[in-house]
Amino acid sequence: MDSRTGLPTVGMVGGGQLARMTHQAAIALGQSLRVLAEHPDDSAALVAPDVSLGSHLDLAALREFAARCDVVTFDHEHVPGDHIRSLAAGGHTVYPSAEALRYAQDKAVMRQRLSDLGIPVPRYLVVPSDDVTGPDEVVDRVTAFGRDAGWPVVVKTARGGYDGRGVWVVRDADAVRDLVTGFEPVPDLVLEELVPLSRELAAVVARSPFGQAAAWPVVETVQEDGICVEVVAPAPELPEDRAAAATRLALTVAHRLDVVGVLAVELFDVPVSSAAPDGLQVNELAMRPHNSAHWTMDGSVTGQFEQHLRAVLDYPLGRTDAVAPWTVMGNVLGGPADGPGAAVSLDERVHHLAARFPDVKVHLYGKGYRPGRKLGHVNVCGSDLAELRRRARLSAQWLGDGVWADGWSSDEAATAEAGGDR
Amino acid sequence: MDSRTGLPTVGMVGGGQLARMTHQAAIALGQSLRVLAEHPDDSAALVAPDVSLGSHLDLAALREFAARCDVVTFDHEHVPGDHIRSLAAGGHTVYPSAEALRYAQDKAVMRQRLSDLGIPVPRYLVVPSDDVTGPDEVVDRVTAFGRDAGWPVVVKTARGGYDGRGVWVVRDADAVRDLVTGFEPVPDLVLEELVPLSRELAAVVARSPFGQAAAWPVVETVQEDGICVEVVAPAPELPEDRAAAATRLALTVAHRLDVVGVLAVELFDVPVSSAAPDGLQVNELAMRPHNSAHWTMDGSVTGQFEQHLRAVLDYPLGRTDAVAPWTVMGNVLGGPADGPGAAVSLDERVHHLAARFPDVKVHLYGKGYRPGRKLGHVNVCGSDLAELRRRARLSAQWLGDGVWADGWSSDEAATAEAGGDR
Ligand SMILES: Nc1ncnc2c1ncn2[C@@H]1O[C@H](COP(=O)(O)OP(=O)(O)OP(=O)(O)O)[C@@H](O)[C@H]1O
Ligand SMILES: Nc1ncnc2c1ncn2[C@@H]1O[C@H](COP(=O)(O)OP(=O)(O)OP(=O)(O)O)[C@@H](O)[C@H]1O
Ligand SMILES: [Mg+2]
Ligand SMILES: [Mg+2]
Repeated sequence: MDSRTGLPTVGMVGGGQLARMTHQAAIALGQSLRVLAEHPDDSAALVAPDVSLGSHLDLAALREFAARCDVVTFDHEHVPGDHIRSLAAGGHTVYPSAEALRYAQDKAVMRQRLSDLGIPVPRYLVVPSDDVTGPDEVVDRVTAFGRDAGWPVVVKTARGGYDGRGVWVVRDADAVRDLVTGFEPVPDLVLEELVPLSRELAAVVARSPFGQAAAWPVVETVQEDGICVEVVAPAPELPEDRAAAATRLALTVAHRLDVVGVLAVELFDVPVSSAAPDGLQVNELAMRPHNSAHWTMDGSVTGQFEQHLRAVLDYPLGRTDAVAPWTVMGNVLGGPADGPGAAVSLDERVHHLAARFPDVKVHLYGKGYRPGRKLGHVNVCGSDLAELRRRARLSAQWLGDGVWADGWSSDEAATAEAGGDR
Repeated sequence: MDSRTGLPTVGMVGGGQLARMTHQAAIALGQSLRVLAEHPDDSAALVAPDVSLGSHLDLAALREFAARCDVVTFDHEHVPGDHIRSLAAGGHTVYPSAEALRYAQDKAVMRQRLSDLGIPVPRYLVVPSDDVTGPDEVVDRVTAFGRDAGWPVVVKTARGGYDGRGVWVVRDADAVRDLVTGFEPVPDLVLEELVPLSRELAAVVARSPFGQAAAWPVVETVQEDGICVEVVAPAPELPEDRAAAATRLALTVAHRLDVVGVLAVELFDVPVSSAAPDGLQVNELAMRPHNSAHWTMDGSVTGQFEQHLRAVLDYPLGRTDAVAPWTVMGNVLGGPADGPGAAVSLDERVHHLAARFPDVKVHLYGKGYRPGRKLGHVNVCGSDLAELRRRARLSAQWLGDGVWADGWSSDEAATAEAGGDR
């Protein structure tokens, strides 16, 4: 309890953009997020006053941090379960628990558990590293799986992957051999069929220790090269019953895995079959605010960062209604370092974006520039979906690349484009 | 320019709630607000990492602060004009300028200038302190003004008043004598007729150095005991032509006084007359984010804090459309220290508010408790105005007093009240 404000203190392990935006939400609730960051230049450390520097792998640092918080939660999945269990054993309140978080940390454990719960997942096979004698045996296992389930095969590292790193699609035994010779050492692997998905969806919910849960509308997520580039809320032309099934599924996962905080369930939209009776299969789980719900910051009565705080504080949850017919989120990814717009400063980019699209909401993370890095996102709300998608795409690309993909120039057209109606 | 982010740095003089909420908005723009605060426990100092401690009256402190900012702006009106001129003379960019800010600092100067511009104001008389030999002469002047303009008379200190402190309504010569004997010394005064207003309005706009301006919908502000308790956006049943006139008037003031940043024009809604051809008279001006536009944080595409930043950075301004048919803001004022709810902690208050009204947005300032002090505000958006007003009032009172004015108890009714539709 902060004696100055009479309010509890939430601590977040990890100083990335999720912590940054959680701090923004904490301010409204009368609080200030306490952050354990690795570097003083981390995204959240640039904007929050109460930052401890330390590694999420260092139990002593975690303990010292937790001692100054009423609740501890996470910006990422990388805190070892044993450390979290130690904190809990020491009397600290930590959400989500180590037991829940396991299923967001390890795709092998997650696949197994969801299957046990009868939740539809792609056909898969876990290949634990200590179950194979070496690369050759991995090749044999993948080849056997491919023969059985059909090629291509999706090979994933069980732990540590993100933004598509740690996910490979292999077409045949030769490709498997090429991939596996790069492993040093061989990690735990999950093999999956390449799902004939028509698109990807996400069902995001929040759940409190009290057991209350609230779901946002189901969204469509668009990935390119394994990384999310766009989210459309709600998912266009998703039949009501499929949307309801997706939400039910996410609520079931939250309940059965005893998740506290935001839970994002990444889904594949697939043909109805016995392996996917509702036309849905779970891809993976995230137990923290998630990219697929960044749209809620401007598009919903309660944004995911506030909701995550409410959940871990065991406050009743906020309304999750959309505030506009459509919201489109575009991820800002750092463009090529030698691209034609590389010389355009971020300041100029924001300036010209504001000039062209006065209705686009910008969220920048203060992160150093690196090609492909997530530097921010934009949201735009309204009623004309095609137009919103155009704006979000153009805006995100411009902020990332310094290039308007449609050739727009601020010199030629000094006037703003009228905003979409609401 | 911040070398880490490639973005300019805005510094705000004053560490109150306006700086706090401006920091929140700065985060989205990739920035972190630099704050000059008097105390480490100031509202903004609790949530921003880059705080200098110092007085806004100390020119050396202001100079040192400005040297580390690309633009300096203000959380309040109390920085002496000469100090601001010194900063500008030293090459610092300061918005609004001393010349503009004068009209928000001194009601006598403001009344005079607006009259000169032909903008309707209440009938008034300035009584400069060095124009009167002592209290007796003040009584004579007020009595003469009352005889002329009619009783009661509104007596205001020209400078330093806020939340109705520094504003008195006197009914007759005896009351004037009582008031004036309390003055020590006699301040510069403005005498005004008591305007037969039907209600109060505010027209809030923002303007950039480039000259671009954007206006939010005109709102109704409700004051009790001289302090704003509620704002309704847009002002109910305001005829379109009167709303347009109010907006035009605010844009004219912004333009003619060369205001940069947010400008709030407090207005009286009065019968049409030769002294008020549009049924409007200006009460006062604020040149910073203002209580009458707190609703924009949840109720408009662009909130006033972001817009103020855009304006002082000379970025193009954001859209000012409302996101819902109605938004109601309720101010949270500290209740009596010995009231029946005084023992209910702020944490419990937030908790129960969330339980009862999951659609109400809370904004708390982290300020120490004091009866009558503005501790925060709530916003609620939707389509049923009467219901929104009920929710905002009850919520703000509950947060301030620890008492539900309608007797609701969380024990009896554990379920939330369904939110208003949008
Ligand atoms: N079995 C599969 N069939 C088809 N496509 C798949 C399959 N598994 C993964 N993908 C594709 O690869 C993307 C990344 O996979 P996954 O979400 O497992 O990896 P990640 O690196 O953990 O991603 P994230 O950034 O979401 O954490 C998916 O969004 C999907 O587009
Ligand atoms: N001439 C007038 N006639 C009628 N009512 C008046 C007049 N002047 C002021 N008032 C009332 O007193 C309130 C406070 O006046 P004013 O805005 O001048 O004071 P303030 O202390 O500067 O307030 P603020 O908190 O807005 O800065 C007004 O909102 C209005 O309700
Ligand atoms: Mg994924
Ligand atoms: Mg006023």
